[in-house]
Amino acid sequence: MSKILEKTLKAIKALDKDSMDKARQRQDSLTKPQGSLGRLEEISIQLAGIQGKEIPKIDKKAIIVMAGDHGILEEGIHNWPKEVTAQMVENFISGGACINVISRQIGADVLVVDMGVATPISNNDKLLKRSIGKGTKNIARGAAMSREQALKAIEAGIEIISKEAKKGLSLVGTGDMGLGNTSSSAAICAVITGSPVSVVTGRGTGLEDAKLKKKIEAIEKALEVNKADREDPMDVLAKLGGFEIAGLAGVILGAAANGVAVVIDGFISGAAALIATEIEPKAKRYIIGGHLSVEPGHRIMLDYMGVSPLLQFDMRLGEGTGGALAMVIVEASARTLGEMATFGEARVSEKEQ
Amino acid sequence: MSKILEKTLKAIKALDKDSMDKARQRQDSLTKPQGSLGRLEEISIQLAGIQGKEIPKIDKKAIIVMAGDHGILEEGIHNWPKEVTAQMVENFISGGACINVISRQIGADVLVVDMGVATPISNNDKLLKRSIGKGTKNIARGAAMSREQALKAIEAGIEIISKEAKKGLSLVGTGDMGLGNTSSSAAICAVITGSPVSVVTGRGTGLEDAKLKKKIEAIEKALEVNKADREDPMDVLAKLGGFEIAGLAGVILGAAANGVAVVIDGFISGAAALIATEIEPKAKRYIIGGHLSVEPGHRIMLDYMGVSPLLQFDMRLGEGTGGALAMVIVEASARTLGEMATFGEARVSEKEQ
Repeated sequence: MSKILEKTLKAIKALDKDSMDKARQRQDSLTKPQGSLGRLEEISIQLAGIQGKEIPKIDKKAIIVMAGDHGILEEGIHNWPKEVTAQMVENFISGGACINVISRQIGADVLVVDMGVATPISNNDKLLKRSIGKGTKNIARGAAMSREQALKAIEAGIEIISKEAKKGLSLVGTGDMGLGNTSSSAAICAVITGSPVSVVTGRGTGLEDAKLKKKIEAIEKALEVNKADREDPMDVLAKLGGFEIAGLAGVILGAAANGVAVVIDGFISGAAALIATEIEPKAKRYIIGGHLSVEPGHRIMLDYMGVSPLLQFDMRLGEGTGGALAMVIVEASARTLGEMATFGEARVSEKEQ
Repeated sequence: MSKILEKTLKAIKALDKDSMDKARQRQDSLTKPQGSLGRLEEISIQLAGIQGKEIPKIDKKAIIVMAGDHGILEEGIHNWPKEVTAQMVENFISGGACINVISRQIGADVLVVDMGVATPISNNDKLLKRSIGKGTKNIARGAAMSREQALKAIEAGIEIISKEAKKGLSLVGTGDMGLGNTSSSAAICAVITGSPVSVVTGRGTGLEDAKLKKKIEAIEKALEVNKADREDPMDVLAKLGGFEIAGLAGVILGAAANGVAVVIDGFISGAAALIATEIEPKAKRYIIGGHLSVEPGHRIMLDYMGVSPLLQFDMRLGEGTGGALAMVIVEASARTLGEMATFGEARVSEKEQ
């Protein structure tokens, strides 16, 4: 383990119980029946624990979208031309993708990171360049990357989020782009949660039955060939992961270390969260579930981590889109706790005993 | 039926199929796998049909919160002092309630309407005064209001939303305040959907078991005493409803007549929507389900109308809070349809056949 990662893991603390107690008390003094804001109240108390403040605030928000290519595309199990990963990165940079539209609406920045895209990216001034390689190797034939590469990718994620945290970021969403990354995520899900590949593997961007069957076979082969050590999350990540998945695991660990709440998006962010929380289980309490993906393995991952998704709109796009929508709810939970009048302030009579 | 209501019902058209087809085609040209935005795509197409435009826009948003008192409180089945309805109206006006906080966050106006609050309201310059009476009569002993009063309340709702529509409102949320209004809503739900009172009645703001039992008995008595005619929604409304419920039914009908999409909040808005859609079933397609309430009758109402709620956060506050949160999602659905780049514009390769 590197010094950066070691230092990061040490900095991840349990949530601040005192602030959570105070936030809970404050919730009960606000002009509403106690508990009537349901999950909004729960999240506000979690945020209080994360920020160590009775009244947590959501000021600066960002979505970190990490992109990487995947060697498993060689198995012929995907429907889109390989260059789409790079083209979509260009779309993120020009502001035309779904995550850009939603981020503009909710007032969040979008940070686009090349963690390992295979095709050259033009128009890349605003791109954060942290490429670890020109796509991973084909996991159906061997390891996706070396352990050193996995570590380097995690460190890149830690570095990016730490810098943003210093600039005042209070809420981060994770997003991904990478053709083939549902295969990698399914492989990680199967190994960590112990579920069969056939159960956790879905249609990704829309595979038909024959290709889905081929996809499942390729992932089963990847598990067989790599024999990843379930007890060693870095081994699972290096052998079956992707550069963007490793980077996002770093973002999650770095967010927790910096006291920043992190909203995870769909299946790929879920795989990153699985790796991050296997490395350091205390990171779980900094995670807020965004959107439940259509990918069948996503529910299994979230249940395994004890994370409950806020939204369920049958989305399966990635990019951080589901998480970005959920960030509005997270912000509302902080705002209601902070801005609602108490019974005393509003001179509203309290419940009769 | 009055001339205003008659004119309003005549103005409610089927959704514009041509705009919906164009919106669907546009969705399929945007830089994402087809269908990958799930419910956001569905809603964008519904909005296209409502607004009669290929690319619908959500500009001005408002929550209309209607307040009224309920005579059934005489039965001793509620936990809060009667003056809380008026006090909360004052809280809405001063901006300290939950609906104010969420509306500020999402950029929506809050219109507060006195439809029939029993206690005098001070500090009321910004209040829309449409009071039909000082609270309804006790439905456990007789009709809540006269048929004329019900009609007058509906007309007030139509008038308010029509005025806002003329000023450019493109999305409205319905909200309520009124001690005792879950009883009234449960009674309406039982009659219209044919479900047993014991199944559709919940704990409201937090009743304990003994009072819940008393509440169910009082509502059963209300059904027995009033013998509302299930085939005549105005009769159901007048005998079992509330002034705010009638007003909100008017808002829903008026929104549909003016081509404004309406997001319904929880159980009370659901009762208003039941009445509105029994009066004119075509209004259903203008409704978007906001938040699924903890009240058990809410799901039954929504299923009956074929409306699917966007959010489920175990909230049970009313005021339009759940609907206001859902308005963000509705806005995102319109924005993604309107602002995302097409494959051609972004030069992204399309799916291989």
